[in-house]
Amino acid sequence: MVTRKEDFSKWYLQTIQQADLMDYSPVRGCMIFKPDGFEIWEHIQAAFNARFKEEGVRNAYFPMLIPETFFSKEKDHIEGFSPELPWVTEAAGEPLEERLALRPTSETIIGDAYSNWIQSYRDLPMQINQWANVFRWEKKTLPFLRTSEFLWQEGHTAHATAEEAKERTMRMLTIYREVVEELLAVPVVAGEKTPSERFAGAENTYSIEAMMQDGKAVQAGTSHYMGTKFAEAFDIRYLNTDNEHVYAYTTSWGVSTRLIGAMIMMHSDDQGLVLPPKVAPIQVVLVPVGPWQKNPAILEKIEELNTQLKAKGIRTKIDDTDNSPGYKFNEWELRGVPLRIECGPRDLQNEQVIIKLRDESDKKAVPFADFIETIESELTTMQTRLLTTARAMNQANYHTNINTLDELVEHIETKRAAGELPGWVLAGWDGTEESEAKIKELTGFTTRNIPFAGQVEEKTTCIVTGQPAKHTVWLARAY
Amino acid sequence: MVTRKEDFSKWYLQTIQQADLMDYSPVRGCMIFKPDGFEIWEHIQAAFNARFKEEGVRNAYFPMLIPETFFSKEKDHIEGFSPELPWVTEAAGEPLEERLALRPTSETIIGDAYSNWIQSYRDLPMQINQWANVFRWEKKTLPFLRTSEFLWQEGHTAHATAEEAKERTMRMLTIYREVVEELLAVPVVAGEKTPSERFAGAENTYSIEAMMQDGKAVQAGTSHYMGTKFAEAFDIRYLNTDNEHVYAYTTSWGVSTRLIGAMIMMHSDDQGLVLPPKVAPIQVVLVPVGPWQKNPAILEKIEELNTQLKAKGIRTKIDDTDNSPGYKFNEWELRGVPLRIECGPRDLQNEQVIIKLRDESDKKAVPFADFIETIESELTTMQTRLLTTARAMNQANYHTNINTLDELVEHIETKRAAGELPGWVLAGWDGTEESEAKIKELTGFTTRNIPFAGQVEEKTTCIVTGQPAKHTVWLARAY
Repeated sequence: MVTRKEDFSKWYLQTIQQADLMDYSPVRGCMIFKPDGFEIWEHIQAAFNARFKEEGVRNAYFPMLIPETFFSKEKDHIEGFSPELPWVTEAAGEPLEERLALRPTSETIIGDAYSNWIQSYRDLPMQINQWANVFRWEKKTLPFLRTSEFLWQEGHTAHATAEEAKERTMRMLTIYREVVEELLAVPVVAGEKTPSERFAGAENTYSIEAMMQDGKAVQAGTSHYMGTKFAEAFDIRYLNTDNEHVYAYTTSWGVSTRLIGAMIMMHSDDQGLVLPPKVAPIQVVLVPVGPWQKNPAILEKIEELNTQLKAKGIRTKIDDTDNSPGYKFNEWELRGVPLRIECGPRDLQNEQVIIKLRDESDKKAVPFADFIETIESELTTMQTRLLTTARAMNQANYHTNINTLDELVEHIETKRAAGELPGWVLAGWDGTEESEAKIKELTGFTTRNIPFAGQVEEKTTCIVTGQPAKHTVWLARAY
Repeated sequence: MVTRKEDFSKWYLQTIQQADLMDYSPVRGCMIFKPDGFEIWEHIQAAFNARFKEEGVRNAYFPMLIPETFFSKEKDHIEGFSPELPWVTEAAGEPLEERLALRPTSETIIGDAYSNWIQSYRDLPMQINQWANVFRWEKKTLPFLRTSEFLWQEGHTAHATAEEAKERTMRMLTIYREVVEELLAVPVVAGEKTPSERFAGAENTYSIEAMMQDGKAVQAGTSHYMGTKFAEAFDIRYLNTDNEHVYAYTTSWGVSTRLIGAMIMMHSDDQGLVLPPKVAPIQVVLVPVGPWQKNPAILEKIEELNTQLKAKGIRTKIDDTDNSPGYKFNEWELRGVPLRIECGPRDLQNEQVIIKLRDESDKKAVPFADFIETIESELTTMQTRLLTTARAMNQANYHTNINTLDELVEHIETKRAAGELPGWVLAGWDGTEESEAKIKELTGFTTRNIPFAGQVEEKTTCIVTGQPAKHTVWLARAY
């Protein structure tokens, strides 16, 4: 068992496999989402679907195969995506007349549909989301975080005005931040991506970025304002109230199964997976201890408690296998079950159970009389505690007093030599691609995003050139 | 507006487009599921997920791309599917070393995974389902019923014994029948497919078959018993309690978005779509009538009633646009909304609303005092009534007294000449492929399934040869 300190990457791969969340596939870079891994995704889907519905966004499904000519309609889009596309070139024994791409994202095919569906201002806003598999043929892959096929949602909206489209873009970013923090207990920084990191074809791209336990960043969700670029490419025009045919303003926004990877890297420890209660397939495991097989009253009590838990909608499991308690404790810790309940002969006598929260080291006794209230509140508390712990870890690894590239290089070297995290560095940036490239070349750090005003103290000079800073950016190594 | 009688196919296409359920796609044979069409699918998914969970079946997700070598492992499987496969041959600018098929079904890739996951009898049964997009490059396509890409669920289980696997196969067929009848109000006949109609690689295939309003059949779901055929092809073996390495017995079963097509063809009428309340995106539409714009009390009342409906979890819509009531009535009928509520000045005075069920011709007055109970019971009654009406239509078109091929040919000709449905014909069959082929050649009718014992009166002689019948089969034209 390798620890996080010894080798973070190995630890991650070991954690997800021992927790039985995934398996590799015979197709390079594609993975299998095993039932526990997939159920986490189902909880994520349910949370987002509820939020989307409140926003008037409806689900639909568009074809996966996209004709090559569609991509070519938006110049930046095809340039950005073509290096990663898999192509269907033959079907039913015959070559196709036109190559069909496996969708990497659906702006093009949805843009084409919107151009037919949107005729008048009465058709706006049009707000549709789809849950789908998408493909980006990646060279280096990592389960959940970067795979050739992944699952995601992509929302696509069209609006009468730029203001309304911008509002939608920002609103979805807020929803992403809230769900990721509340459901997955992963704190994020919201901001705008630099032009070089924009979605291919967008006017502005915004992201939420999360800091993992190794100090690296995961881009956890993006929201794009397209202006009229895709509307012009696909002729999405509507008759406005002045009877003019004008272009609509569009947006798109997505989160993917990489959220699962981010959540795992954020909370898990050297004993294995740690899952926030809200998404855990099993929230509570009940384990009989002591000579329970000789004393049927123990399992009876456990079953009674289990019934109480289930009545509250809590997802539970009784482990009444023949394995030793130690084996069972280890097994359910590896699998990230948030709360374990033990009950043996002495507990029965004392009218109590012993509980252990996955992210705490001490056990506690809970009297039968307070059982259900205590379990419910412990789960709620754990959910909040995971977010608080993660925030504290993040705070400790934000570095805001680094002002030159030399200082940055030294900071990274010093931290690494000490076995500490270089974390994230807040830097002034003159807004040029040259400066961005230089930072990356010398340090491997990239611009994560330009945090929204008020979140950080603005830097005044560019970390590379010493010239006045145009923006303040977060720099970090990223997954 | 074409009627069912005039041209059933045209009527179907017109119905689904006017109801805004779908749109065509630029890729041949692929379709767009628009929000109303997709929401029906979401209700179907929710119903099946609940049943699968009760059966101990869990959801997962397997890669879409399947290496060509995988298909070749089971001879019948590759023969059956290869004429319909689309292939990815290049990715990220380079030709692939091995062609990858877009999955038509996932027995192969799941079989490969199961061979790793199943080691001991303790790992059995293994019961996994996935909801996914699948591809079968069809020559003739029809929205929902036969498309090159469609959505489905595919369950795959492995068991220690043949008996247990057979039980699972039959149990899933029962669940299919129950959900299709209870949720979609589509009556079905359950039975076994003949060998020539078996799933490629299965030992036995069972189906549920539904009769549409034009008398044709839709295969609405299938369940397959594989014996050890896939276990042998993919080496799915386990250590049994006698410490022997033996093959597992596997099953698979699926329903797809064609269920939506079957439901539409079953219930809709010349005024447009008719939706069973359980799956309707909008279950109740509320329309103010009379000079309601001058009398704010009407819309206030409608909003109050709407709040009552929503509190009961009923999906509603208030149509307070400027369109005329006649236009609105027509619009919501086209879209299949099960129940319409009208409220105008006179109704307000009489403390009542007027309701109209989509499948009935008369309107009824409902006093405010009985409002919510009446609406709830009318929706429940309509759900049941649709199934009863469909059953009656089916019963009227089962023909069980046809004993020779000449009689069958004459029956079809007579019915067609009279503008009546040839429907389904119960026939004795000697069990040979030759007889099956002859029936198809002369009549276009195919064997739908061999209904389970007790459902029909067994026929004693083969309709083709006059020899003793081995089985009694349903014959029909099919989608």
